[in-house]
Amino acid sequence: MVISCALKLLFPISQRCFTTASAAMVKYLQQDEAVNIDIELFDQYKFSVDQLMELAGLSCATAIARCYQPSNKSSHVLVCCGPGNNGGDGLVCARHLKLFGFSPSLYYPKRTDKPLYENLLHQCLSMNIPVIEESPSVLELNNSFSLIVDALFGFSFKPPVRPHFKPILEALQQTTSPICSIDIPSGWDVEKGCPESGGLQPEMLISLTAPKLCAQSFKGKHHFLGGRFVPPSLSEKYGLDLPSYPGTDCCVKLDS
Amino acid sequence: MVISCALKLLFPISQRCFTTASAAMVKYLQQDEAVNIDIELFDQYKFSVDQLMELAGLSCATAIARCYQPSNKSSHVLVCCGPGNNGGDGLVCARHLKLFGFSPSLYYPKRTDKPLYENLLHQCLSMNIPVIEESPSVLELNNSFSLIVDALFGFSFKPPVRPHFKPILEALQQTTSPICSIDIPSGWDVEKGCPESGGLQPEMLISLTAPKLCAQSFKGKHHFLGGRFVPPSLSEKYGLDLPSYPGTDCCVKLDS
Repeated sequence: MVISCALKLLFPISQRCFTTASAAMVKYLQQDEAVNIDIELFDQYKFSVDQLMELAGLSCATAIARCYQPSNKSSHVLVCCGPGNNGGDGLVCARHLKLFGFSPSLYYPKRTDKPLYENLLHQCLSMNIPVIEESPSVLELNNSFSLIVDALFGFSFKPPVRPHFKPILEALQQTTSPICSIDIPSGWDVEKGCPESGGLQPEMLISLTAPKLCAQSFKGKHHFLGGRFVPPSLSEKYGLDLPSYPGTDCCVKLDS
Repeated sequence: MVISCALKLLFPISQRCFTTASAAMVKYLQQDEAVNIDIELFDQYKFSVDQLMELAGLSCATAIARCYQPSNKSSHVLVCCGPGNNGGDGLVCARHLKLFGFSPSLYYPKRTDKPLYENLLHQCLSMNIPVIEESPSVLELNNSFSLIVDALFGFSFKPPVRPHFKPILEALQQTTSPICSIDIPSGWDVEKGCPESGGLQPEMLISLTAPKLCAQSFKGKHHFLGGRFVPPSLSEKYGLDLPSYPGTDCCVKLDS
């Protein structure tokens, strides 16, 4: 009871505001549409990766804080980052989670040597976010982390999974700790969804910009949309039918 | 009554969440401290200007939406942008205000030819934010805009005001429309406050990172702190005593 009150004090908004939008109204993107929208955001609208990754990662951390509140037990979060933009979103997400009172750790096995990624990692390290070097076992995932953020592969993923990532993906399939996938559950086909041979089943999915086709087969508890930066003209061009974000919120829960 | 209900629907959070922190607890920065913190954020913590400007501008738009809600009458906002980082914060703020349902316009008389600034302006233009080319008269400010965002000069300002900006500063001193200053009321001495010869008196002040000394003589209605990105170790080094941001909020109202 005492803990419950403390949490309410810590996160008054989360308790009060949980406006949802109908996912049925939203367009689900094919892979090439997602790629083209991304290209337009950078080439036509002149956003920098830094800008959009910051907003995307912030919206992921915010959505996570709506569903999983930091406490002694549940604040340990492992953020698994892949080599591309999805991993970059994860690095930003981890930093904001730390600012929100969570205790994130990183698993970032294949580091990108671009300055942006090196800097994002440096920012995490400067905020005392530890990095796990070895691929964690199922037991470690179950016992040490009450939430795992899957920021391994995004919408440009094409199978097969590279050998380097097989151990972590297998562990994510077997863990009993809840998983929150950023944009795409890693290993899923962006359009067809979970592979027939089996794949991870996240409890939470945060679609960025707009949901991808695979999100239609998401069966978890929480589906959020984040990345509130799409110019209306771009949304119209692709017929995104994005839901209204409530007030100044950077994410919105989608009703299934 | 109908309008009031519609506004509540549009901004449910603003209505409900208005947690304040005591400004008495917060450290007010000297100009050199503000400059040094800025340098450390970029050089030691490896943030990019894109990242922090995005978060700063977002926090300004969010704070503004807490105090001034968009409606037919009050949604016309003029964002006056200077040539430096304060102006960049204003460009980002304008874009987010547009996404929040406001109708911002820009006055941006001295444009910076760095790619970041060109891109920030391009993003605004792509979202159909109009730009006013001529310095607006007092009458125009009074009649056409229900809020003016002052993003002309920031914490690195040193007097005197360049001739180019004198007309807009004089108009801002005389307008009856409320002004929201970003970080510093433009024309004020960063440490000593409003010049004895007279200066603008904003109704709202949004301090970024930490308030500067001049904020102690701010007499307006709303003082917010924004820019929730300061690493704890940097905050400790400078003894910032930053207030707790509630939940996942990117700004916090400071009680005077």
